[in-house]
Amino acid sequence: MPAEDDFTVTPYAVEGDIDYDRLLDKFGADALTAEQKAKFPDPSHPLVRRDVFYAERDVDPFLDAANEGKPHSIVTGRGPSGPMHIGHIFPFYFAKYLQDQTGTLVYIPFSDDEKYFLKDKSLGEISDYTRENLLDLLAVGFDPERTRIIVDTADADVVYPLATAFAKEVTQSTVDATYGEPENIGLSFYPAVQATHLLLPQLVEGRHPTLVPIAVDQDPHVRVCRDIAAKQRYDVAKPGALLSKFLPSLEGPGKMSSSDDAPSILLSDDRETVFGKIRTHAYSGGQTSLKEHREQGGNPEVDVSYQFLYYFFEESDEQVERLAREYQQGSLLSGELKEMAAENIANFLEAHQERRRALGPLEEELEQYRLTESERQDARRRTGYPDNSLVQQ
Amino acid sequence: MPAEDDFTVTPYAVEGDIDYDRLLDKFGADALTAEQKAKFPDPSHPLVRRDVFYAERDVDPFLDAANEGKPHSIVTGRGPSGPMHIGHIFPFYFAKYLQDQTGTLVYIPFSDDEKYFLKDKSLGEISDYTRENLLDLLAVGFDPERTRIIVDTADADVVYPLATAFAKEVTQSTVDATYGEPENIGLSFYPAVQATHLLLPQLVEGRHPTLVPIAVDQDPHVRVCRDIAAKQRYDVAKPGALLSKFLPSLEGPGKMSSSDDAPSILLSDDRETVFGKIRTHAYSGGQTSLKEHREQGGNPEVDVSYQFLYYFFEESDEQVERLAREYQQGSLLSGELKEMAAENIANFLEAHQERRRALGPLEEELEQYRLTESERQDARRRTGYPDNSLVQQ
Repeated sequence: MPAEDDFTVTPYAVEGDIDYDRLLDKFGADALTAEQKAKFPDPSHPLVRRDVFYAERDVDPFLDAANEGKPHSIVTGRGPSGPMHIGHIFPFYFAKYLQDQTGTLVYIPFSDDEKYFLKDKSLGEISDYTRENLLDLLAVGFDPERTRIIVDTADADVVYPLATAFAKEVTQSTVDATYGEPENIGLSFYPAVQATHLLLPQLVEGRHPTLVPIAVDQDPHVRVCRDIAAKQRYDVAKPGALLSKFLPSLEGPGKMSSSDDAPSILLSDDRETVFGKIRTHAYSGGQTSLKEHREQGGNPEVDVSYQFLYYFFEESDEQVERLAREYQQGSLLSGELKEMAAENIANFLEAHQERRRALGPLEEELEQYRLTESERQDARRRTGYPDNSLVQQ
Repeated sequence: MPAEDDFTVTPYAVEGDIDYDRLLDKFGADALTAEQKAKFPDPSHPLVRRDVFYAERDVDPFLDAANEGKPHSIVTGRGPSGPMHIGHIFPFYFAKYLQDQTGTLVYIPFSDDEKYFLKDKSLGEISDYTRENLLDLLAVGFDPERTRIIVDTADADVVYPLATAFAKEVTQSTVDATYGEPENIGLSFYPAVQATHLLLPQLVEGRHPTLVPIAVDQDPHVRVCRDIAAKQRYDVAKPGALLSKFLPSLEGPGKMSSSDDAPSILLSDDRETVFGKIRTHAYSGGQTSLKEHREQGGNPEVDVSYQFLYYFFEESDEQVERLAREYQQGSLLSGELKEMAAENIANFLEAHQERRRALGPLEEELEQYRLTESERQDARRRTGYPDNSLVQQ
């Protein structure tokens, strides 16, 4: 890594201040153009029009298929190693928005295997988080006809045979170069599982454009999979990527994480907790005294409450622009901004929690989202397992 | 590796002349003692009493359990990358002999995944060999009540969740040190799958002594698994190993292989083919002229026909001793020895082929040897998956 890099981004570590443009150069992805943004469904989503999704690989075939009513899919997954926070859920609400607008197929892989490999947690703990996180996913309200949820260990009958095929295409030295030498052999193998996730919609449904909306730090997983697809051993298109910035953590801009010391706003937080966390912890872009603030104004660029509203929790562009203006002018105070952010987030979470409470038992709810037996067979067949293979019986 | 080593033995390469005693030093296994040999069932098996199985790790707990009528198991597998030859089948007939004598549980894993990772063959080709090889295994005539056959891709619902657990215990650097850096990430992961194979009987049936009868070159796989068991995260005993010499190839002493240029005697060969291969290709320990042979005698140590009889195809100790003596004295000719070996091998194969022809359709026959649903659940539970885990539903 060149000496001038003062930040590190791999799927397992985000450190330092992020220069999003330099990340694009580094990963070789392209900025999302105005023309591409215009091809997203109307009404457009704040995450797109406000450049939270700011870069892409092969987004055009996906958008063209969506606009022409042809099959197109999104893959957006979850690593169940803890409770979900608001930063984890917005890609899923974004996926649901697309599904509602253009009938997008949504595939949601749960990488419980990877989280076990990576974290100092037992299989029982990972299993508990899997169940909890699945309920949050189900609360989003996807269309069961167009949505599939895959849990790596519980769907191993399709995940492992497919990953076996793709593992042969990936050298250990590629993995070492992409991620650093893995700590254990589960992590060595995992890129083959991730490739399975990203290619699965096409292996189940036939060749079509797939888009992977992910934080920019997950891009290496997509590139490994794109390299497999590029070999053309399988009749699949290279999955595209829609790359997002990181939702700020309460303590300031950067990647929000429930694993480090910064408090996160959890999907299970009640109104009081949300207000408490934001009042106490949300990093402010305002001045230290009221007098100074009225005179000099605040900086919305680093104000976490403003960022939350901008990223996801204020639908109206007019409103976010007005807030930024008034904050810079000093007429809007940090405390007022915090209250607005807390109010919108609490409202969002209450609605989410209400939908979650209305769900039936997990197994029953999940059943309608699982791959059918014939979908499993199709996926294995398209991966190269012949009809008389025992895995197909 | 020390410079004085003029041979290389890893699970993927056997080169040079084998010094079996030096292999024991290298791998840290122990020679099988007379006392241990005496603890094997009576009548003893030629492979034991003639030192083809010549070394061991933890064989005593297995033999004690067998003698006390307690649960004990053997794991002996097959990598389905081609047709089976006579060298491949003798561990299975040995396992059946033990099962007949003391009710040994026999677990037979088919590593179709590993062979796909390792060989330049398609999933379809590996699948075809899997079916063919399974028929040969079924022809051995194991007791379905005491035998389980596992095909890695077809039993991925149990193999992958267990391998996931064990993969966390194995570092990539351990694999690199044991096997050399693997060519692809499937091979990096495979030691976790192999550990699954070796621990499976205990995970299905509860803790008991397991023995793995294998050619000495496969020992590293056992050691990786023993290291996992030694961590005592799971209630399993370290699997023991019963290590064999290599059955000679027709071209001379060493490891018999159907993958290199030396012809092998296949399980499907008819009588005429067996006689033809042995007459044409079996390396002879005799002299170049009849006159010399009568005067100087032959060398049974390097005579492949003699070795075949000694290893597996002549039950009578008296007979093999007489043959060695007469061959050394020059009264028994190479050609006569070849005819005897061919006759015994052809008889053996005809009986095997007859049993194979009598089998019904593969899927039906195999069904009674597959893990039951409750056995799969037991194995996953003993590996640490809680009852409410989705993999258990």
